[in-house]
Amino acid sequence: MVVRDDVPEPEPAAGQVLVEVLACGICGSDLHFARHGGTMLDLASQMTGVPSPGPQDDPWFRTELASDVFMGHEFSARVLEAGPDTEALPAGTVVTSVPAMVLPRGVRDLAYGNHLPGGYSERMLLSAPLLLEVPNGLDPRHAALTEPVAVGLHAVNRAGLVPGDGAVVLGCGPVGLAVIAALRLRGVEPIVASDLSPARRALATTMGAHEVVDPRDEPAFEAWRRVGGAASMVTFEAVGIPGMLDSVLRDAPAQSRVVVVGVCMQPDTVTPFFAIAKELRLQFVLAYDLDEFAASLRAIAEGEIDVVPLVTGEVDLGGLPGAFDALADPEEHCKILVVP
Amino acid sequence: MVVRDDVPEPEPAAGQVLVEVLACGICGSDLHFARHGGTMLDLASQMTGVPSPGPQDDPWFRTELASDVFMGHEFSARVLEAGPDTEALPAGTVVTSVPAMVLPRGVRDLAYGNHLPGGYSERMLLSAPLLLEVPNGLDPRHAALTEPVAVGLHAVNRAGLVPGDGAVVLGCGPVGLAVIAALRLRGVEPIVASDLSPARRALATTMGAHEVVDPRDEPAFEAWRRVGGAASMVTFEAVGIPGMLDSVLRDAPAQSRVVVVGVCMQPDTVTPFFAIAKELRLQFVLAYDLDEFAASLRAIAEGEIDVVPLVTGEVDLGGLPGAFDALADPEEHCKILVVP
Repeated sequence: MVVRDDVPEPEPAAGQVLVEVLACGICGSDLHFARHGGTMLDLASQMTGVPSPGPQDDPWFRTELASDVFMGHEFSARVLEAGPDTEALPAGTVVTSVPAMVLPRGVRDLAYGNHLPGGYSERMLLSAPLLLEVPNGLDPRHAALTEPVAVGLHAVNRAGLVPGDGAVVLGCGPVGLAVIAALRLRGVEPIVASDLSPARRALATTMGAHEVVDPRDEPAFEAWRRVGGAASMVTFEAVGIPGMLDSVLRDAPAQSRVVVVGVCMQPDTVTPFFAIAKELRLQFVLAYDLDEFAASLRAIAEGEIDVVPLVTGEVDLGGLPGAFDALADPEEHCKILVVP
Repeated sequence: MVVRDDVPEPEPAAGQVLVEVLACGICGSDLHFARHGGTMLDLASQMTGVPSPGPQDDPWFRTELASDVFMGHEFSARVLEAGPDTEALPAGTVVTSVPAMVLPRGVRDLAYGNHLPGGYSERMLLSAPLLLEVPNGLDPRHAALTEPVAVGLHAVNRAGLVPGDGAVVLGCGPVGLAVIAALRLRGVEPIVASDLSPARRALATTMGAHEVVDPRDEPAFEAWRRVGGAASMVTFEAVGIPGMLDSVLRDAPAQSRVVVVGVCMQPDTVTPFFAIAKELRLQFVLAYDLDEFAASLRAIAEGEIDVVPLVTGEVDLGGLPGAFDALADPEEHCKILVVP
């Protein structure tokens, strides 16, 4: 990881705005990419069935690991200047946006590319039609959490919850905590959460879990049986390391649903027999849609989801490499913001 | 495998009827059990989250591989005699039943136990309340296919199909073919099926698939893109061998649903990244409920599903071991009936 001071000032084209980044959260996906970027790109290239994000002969739509890769996709920013013939929010407006750029030949992610600066920058380009004004005078540092909260909101929306459902959340990193917040906002009860880290367990309680356990003392599904009893339920797998999925298949209640929101980058071994014998349903989820992103910003701005406890640190751009290292310790940190 | 002629004549207790078996289909699960019985019992014992089928201290609810294990769960039969104080269909009635026995301490599977004779017998006991009369003078040999057809019906019912959905069916053994028949009955179109065996591919067409491919010539999802185009769809994985699931995750269309109805007994390696990047939903399914079983019998008896092409052979009890061997060749056989 290198902090560059020689990136040229980006210039907004038609439909784009130049913004000054106010805050950008560091996401676990960035840590994943820093470590497994080659694997991720290789797996992506093996997959079929994916609508192509853009023409692969176009360097804007390809990521080369041999070149610099820009990251940072959980940001808030201030509008500086719109491109030519572009209708946009006025200069000075505090905004956030889904981390995507509408280009003439398609839409591509703002992060993990070689050309578009991401949120770990002083300035970046955004698509004018995707800008959302940050309302209610919300602190831009908290607006930067719109993205991870939207991930939790989306996972809960895709869970197929019905009235009376409870939930088990495995893993209380930023994703698991966002899931807990979204479940609580929906009135789901009980919410049982588990994590190895005492600090993360404390945050799970703060974000709304009703029962929080150390899985070494009491496995999450045992805690569920103790407090959730016979209620129907959904499990959220937010750990994403090899072996987790199989343990969920082995231990989840029969006929229950599992939302897989933790991203396991390695091949993983499962026992299909467990899932078949119990007729489990697995919904794998990723990201969010535009409405969910807007709903997430609104929930934070209106105080329905309090993101303040999630922010455990703040660094400037120079502090970025150190922050990546610090995030390895769940006792110390949950979400670190980069404030240029 | 041993054909015993020294099993004592079963005697019906209250709530039970003694029946004469008229026909019993050989199921792939029986072949699985003959080969992997120990693994199946071991995996079952590792699982939590399953409502216990009965008290494990009760030998009726335990299966010991050291003793004889009865099999045969796709049967039709003729009522001989009801147990004491038992209201039942009159003697002589041709019936079928879900392969389960209501015992005083719980319900247990009729097959894969040490105590209750299964369908590979001259006579067996059934639960009086579970009996279904075979209507319309339907040939008892065809009524014996109620069970495998119900498996397909259930898989399709659990697929969450919505109007406009098409389907890809991977594997055209008895389960895949039952899925195709159930899809066709629902009016799903197009149905794309794939199998390595020419004989199975011909049966897939007979049962209602619109497009059938040899995956070595054209992978099923490519055929789907050719004929199904942009339609939303559900994939039915009915092969159940290691590696299949991962290839489905890699190749299924984004945002699509996968029903896993093929039972892979071995641990299997998957790439969660594929499923996450495409937000796939996996529904694992097993068996059927009582309504689906009755609907299956009705569909066969009313000629809505023609099971005749599925039956490729008939043996008596003495021919059972040879039939197990013969079923290894998909060119030769699909469903072999045991007719005592």
